[in-house]
Amino acid sequence: MIDPKVLEDEFHAAQEAVARQGDVVRSLKAQAKEGHVERSAVDEAIEMLKQVKIDMERKQKAYEDATGKTAGANKEAFRAAMTNALERRLFYIPSFKIYGSVAGFYDYGPPGCAMKQNVTQTWRNHFVLEENMLEVECPAVTPEIVLKASGHVDRFTDFMVKDVKTGDCYRADHLLEGTLEAALEDTKAPLSKEAAYEARDLLARVGELGAAELGAALTKYGVKAPDTKNDISDPFPFNLMFKTSIGPRGDMVGYLRPETAQGIFVNFKDLLYYNGSKLPFAAAQIGSSYRNEISPRAGLLRVREFTQAEIEHFVNPADKSHPKFKSVADVAPLLYSRALQMGDEKKPKRIPLGEAVSQGIIANETLAYFIGRTYLFGEKIGLNTERIRFRQHLQHEMAHYAEDCWDFEVECSYGWVECAGLADRSAYDLTAHAGMSKVELNAYERFPEPREEDVLTILPNKKELGKLFKKDAQTIAEALEAMSECDALEMQGKLAAGQAAPLKTGGRTFEMQPGFVEIKKERKKLSGRNFTPGVIEPSFGIGRILYCLFEHAFYTREGDDQRTVFRFTPVTAPVKCTVFPLLQRAELNEKAEAMSAALTRERLSNTVDTTGTTVGKRYARTDEIGVPFAITIDYQTLEDSTATLRERDSTAQVRVPLADLPGLVRRLTDMELSWADVAAQYPAQAPASED
Amino acid sequence: MIDPKVLEDEFHAAQEAVARQGDVVRSLKAQAKEGHVERSAVDEAIEMLKQVKIDMERKQKAYEDATGKTAGANKEAFRAAMTNALERRLFYIPSFKIYGSVAGFYDYGPPGCAMKQNVTQTWRNHFVLEENMLEVECPAVTPEIVLKASGHVDRFTDFMVKDVKTGDCYRADHLLEGTLEAALEDTKAPLSKEAAYEARDLLARVGELGAAELGAALTKYGVKAPDTKNDISDPFPFNLMFKTSIGPRGDMVGYLRPETAQGIFVNFKDLLYYNGSKLPFAAAQIGSSYRNEISPRAGLLRVREFTQAEIEHFVNPADKSHPKFKSVADVAPLLYSRALQMGDEKKPKRIPLGEAVSQGIIANETLAYFIGRTYLFGEKIGLNTERIRFRQHLQHEMAHYAEDCWDFEVECSYGWVECAGLADRSAYDLTAHAGMSKVELNAYERFPEPREEDVLTILPNKKELGKLFKKDAQTIAEALEAMSECDALEMQGKLAAGQAAPLKTGGRTFEMQPGFVEIKKERKKLSGRNFTPGVIEPSFGIGRILYCLFEHAFYTREGDDQRTVFRFTPVTAPVKCTVFPLLQRAELNEKAEAMSAALTRERLSNTVDTTGTTVGKRYARTDEIGVPFAITIDYQTLEDSTATLRERDSTAQVRVPLADLPGLVRRLTDMELSWADVAAQYPAQAPASED
Repeated sequence: MIDPKVLEDEFHAAQEAVARQGDVVRSLKAQAKEGHVERSAVDEAIEMLKQVKIDMERKQKAYEDATGKTAGANKEAFRAAMTNALERRLFYIPSFKIYGSVAGFYDYGPPGCAMKQNVTQTWRNHFVLEENMLEVECPAVTPEIVLKASGHVDRFTDFMVKDVKTGDCYRADHLLEGTLEAALEDTKAPLSKEAAYEARDLLARVGELGAAELGAALTKYGVKAPDTKNDISDPFPFNLMFKTSIGPRGDMVGYLRPETAQGIFVNFKDLLYYNGSKLPFAAAQIGSSYRNEISPRAGLLRVREFTQAEIEHFVNPADKSHPKFKSVADVAPLLYSRALQMGDEKKPKRIPLGEAVSQGIIANETLAYFIGRTYLFGEKIGLNTERIRFRQHLQHEMAHYAEDCWDFEVECSYGWVECAGLADRSAYDLTAHAGMSKVELNAYERFPEPREEDVLTILPNKKELGKLFKKDAQTIAEALEAMSECDALEMQGKLAAGQAAPLKTGGRTFEMQPGFVEIKKERKKLSGRNFTPGVIEPSFGIGRILYCLFEHAFYTREGDDQRTVFRFTPVTAPVKCTVFPLLQRAELNEKAEAMSAALTRERLSNTVDTTGTTVGKRYARTDEIGVPFAITIDYQTLEDSTATLRERDSTAQVRVPLADLPGLVRRLTDMELSWADVAAQYPAQAPASED
Repeated sequence: MIDPKVLEDEFHAAQEAVARQGDVVRSLKAQAKEGHVERSAVDEAIEMLKQVKIDMERKQKAYEDATGKTAGANKEAFRAAMTNALERRLFYIPSFKIYGSVAGFYDYGPPGCAMKQNVTQTWRNHFVLEENMLEVECPAVTPEIVLKASGHVDRFTDFMVKDVKTGDCYRADHLLEGTLEAALEDTKAPLSKEAAYEARDLLARVGELGAAELGAALTKYGVKAPDTKNDISDPFPFNLMFKTSIGPRGDMVGYLRPETAQGIFVNFKDLLYYNGSKLPFAAAQIGSSYRNEISPRAGLLRVREFTQAEIEHFVNPADKSHPKFKSVADVAPLLYSRALQMGDEKKPKRIPLGEAVSQGIIANETLAYFIGRTYLFGEKIGLNTERIRFRQHLQHEMAHYAEDCWDFEVECSYGWVECAGLADRSAYDLTAHAGMSKVELNAYERFPEPREEDVLTILPNKKELGKLFKKDAQTIAEALEAMSECDALEMQGKLAAGQAAPLKTGGRTFEMQPGFVEIKKERKKLSGRNFTPGVIEPSFGIGRILYCLFEHAFYTREGDDQRTVFRFTPVTAPVKCTVFPLLQRAELNEKAEAMSAALTRERLSNTVDTTGTTVGKRYARTDEIGVPFAITIDYQTLEDSTATLRERDSTAQVRVPLADLPGLVRRLTDMELSWADVAAQYPAQAPASED
């Protein structure tokens, strides 16, 4: 029997051959239309396409028969059909294609670029505008000290192994995963029960293994370089930041930011001032981030340059309530809490957010509020809400400082994909930057009522110190004032007992005697306090969201695999409306152009298709890029100044006065009107055949 | 007498001291309000501010008296006042401030970020949407080969000199400029007439000097390192691209793109196909570009990371007419043509674009069309059209391949600043990428009528060549087919005369004999031709446009230097409307919040100011960031459900029903209504004093 992996590879190769030949056919067709090539060349290419399709289907069947993996193969076929549609219509394509491309970089073509802006603008309206956030825009090039403070210089790494002969690089965890999955699925040489248990356990923990454990596992399972079967090196950490040098001297190290968040943290002080020194407030940034992935894969899901939209919501750690929490308390997304993940069913559950907070499932109102807003955002842009869930990080997945973390996961053909992370990061980030920059990053809280508290005061006797220590006196006084409460009380104990006490500072030790410093705890009336704010961070990956949106929107017309459609919501659709003159006549074209201009005045992106092929083919072409509405100008238009308006998914049509159309499409696009409203208001038009 | 340069430096230092002390006062005031610091500390700081202001005025006067430079000083003072207002309200601030900043990087704070988006979105509507351009988004990280093809790896350089002792780096041309300007302005030791003529000539050509000329000039004028007065090195070229490495192996060089244009060129083939293989079409890209400037200066005008908006309009070089040219033929911007620059008056002139094309001042309709559209864009976003001009490049300023170039220049306190360049770049870029990538980047033109043309055909006698040259036969046949028309005809002459002819290829020479190849010119009927499209490139710097917009919009209220205002047009203003409850009462606050929510539903960015200071102070605060409209909720609102609406520049107020307000502000913001329309429709409200 043939290795299923071989069959799978053959099937995928055949899929690619189909996609390639499809491109050839399309290109030849276009050239033939211009009189460039003979019709016979097109026919020949079509014949070839049929053959590679038959070959692909045969290989698909062989693969499915051998593995019983119909579902997986269906997913692969679905994805292949969709990415083919996306690349053909330039939603996105590998960058630098004429130079052979570089892994992990994609270009957005016209419809992809428009959709990305629509999603980003919806995000901005939904979060920044509706929540009155402070939006900032900071550079991507970042000096080293900022990322030293944030921990990225030291810890933003993946484990890498090298092919010892070729020097090719691989992600150690990916190689181990692949090997473990293959071993678990190997039907010819199945693992023993114990071995399978061990492999499964390791698979679940791959992301958390240290260098030594990872190295041991790679050795144990005899992992080799996948392309050459050569030995691999021990795993070692590889920093994922792109490094550069700022300025002409060559002595200032810079990195491309690995996230947009740091730009907000370093501006915290100014932003707090801008906000009238009041907490809570949120700042947001949308922009490019960069990660020099070792082996980018999975298309838009793991790329080296991507758009992030991040929010940092600064709060008083003692009060994480949210004034607008009520507005989402009844929203009930699928929550996959720690308990549900550890339980027997291992299934997420719809829980109203109000309940989730009161039961302590989600740590606080503010975090839950953002989970609710994120869910509503997903719904607004057209994600299938049955395929959205929020998964809580298990205790060991979280950084030590994090109080609670939830991933916004969306299901697609790759499984559940993390499209946003929502984390309560406590005061970690501001504390780190305050420490490195020596700039206080605090807020001030005025107590509702003044409070009495025991306050430690340290009063160096500067006169005495000056006399004895001369030029060191200032240093000593500062060191005394900077003592921790604990050290100060210890010193006070000794001095009070008439003993000397050592003071260490700057590598030197000074002998403190009674009378050099007064240390006491006093009861004081305090009207407020300084504190480092906590931060709750929702962080979105726009490219991943876009990709999932494509998958949730893609389908083929019943009974015709070739007629692909994207059911984008009007607000995200790349083009809102197309205008067709039914036939290639000057008087119809003129009306179509006038309609297009009227739509443009309503800020509705639109195109006029005057190619004069059948209207059915033209509808199909707009379905392919998910245009929700089409207006057709026909001879009746010349008589009664009406035109037909077609809705993409139902393919239903109504007849509408020209003057009404721009406003109507505007309101449909803003989702102030539904198609049902329109169908109720205007007479239906029996559609001509769409073929 | 003191050196004027010293006086100028002293004056600037004093200006900065005033700005700094102003910040201290504001910060203390805010803290005092929260009960943080004593009122006496604030008073002390204000007293200090008064003193540094007096000192500054004294130094300004000394400087102006010594140089007679009142105008310049006014410009400086204007700029200092404006940038103070901009930084204080976080329009933009130096990046990484808590770490001491890095030259050439700026962060946009909330109002700056909002304005940048408004300007960018207006650009997108004006160009991409209205012209149906194909917008793309490509990565900033770019592999070396792309920028090798474009010429940036070899030629994107500035001349740099180093301080021989400290290693500090300077731009050679800037140092020379500074020295020449100082020499020309030196009133104590004025230059002789000849020397002044020479210095002025050199000054005009600084940007075009080669390394040798530049070095000679630096030596002749005895230029030293400005900070240390040490000797400087000879000038040498420094590449301005940020360099990085792609992938984990460390062997793939990448750069941060120095312009967004290349992403469009490498996608030309796909974009042409997307456009149905039809020319002309335009593609556009908005995104970050990066230039590692040697010594960034002049704030937002010369930075290391900036936003570009670029258009590549692809045309048939034989037809650069534009279908929509008529729509701008009567637009008459200030044109500063080559002739006007070389003439006696040296002044630009308003010339209708139709005339400019017909007189051959602008090379073609398409270039002129974009000049017109750029002018209208400048007008739309609120630039002062008296301070906009288009300056044609002199012949020696243009690259050898360029057919015509015009800079869109805007006047500000730094002089005339290039905010966009509009260039007819011929087929240079596509030819360069086709050559490097070996991918044909052509378009096909079908002739209206088939044409008869003499076509050269070269038919190697492959059988004969195979027999004689064995494995070299293929190489020889290809070399024969690749001969230029000229070489082929020369060879044909020899062969026809029965002579042998040499063929050079790959460093070897082969003897061609009669019968080896048939070369002939045939009359053929051609239905079309392949050609490399030309490109017309309008390229905008968004940050520079923003900066000029700030300058054109900034003013102070009559009689009060402290009340600064930005007269932003509603479409670019960062916040469209503020809502004030007249007094701090729950019932007024509630109405204000409801109004704010209604404005948000209209997608109007707005803020509620409930601080309860005088309404005049609150108006002043919104004037400072250029909010065009303010709604005040007062006791009358509770009675008759009306509120006042105030316009920023006139400070006029009308009384409007609450229900009308959101729609009214929406239409004012979209500039569908003018304030005059509103004033005619609603009763005026006598404003309360704004103090």
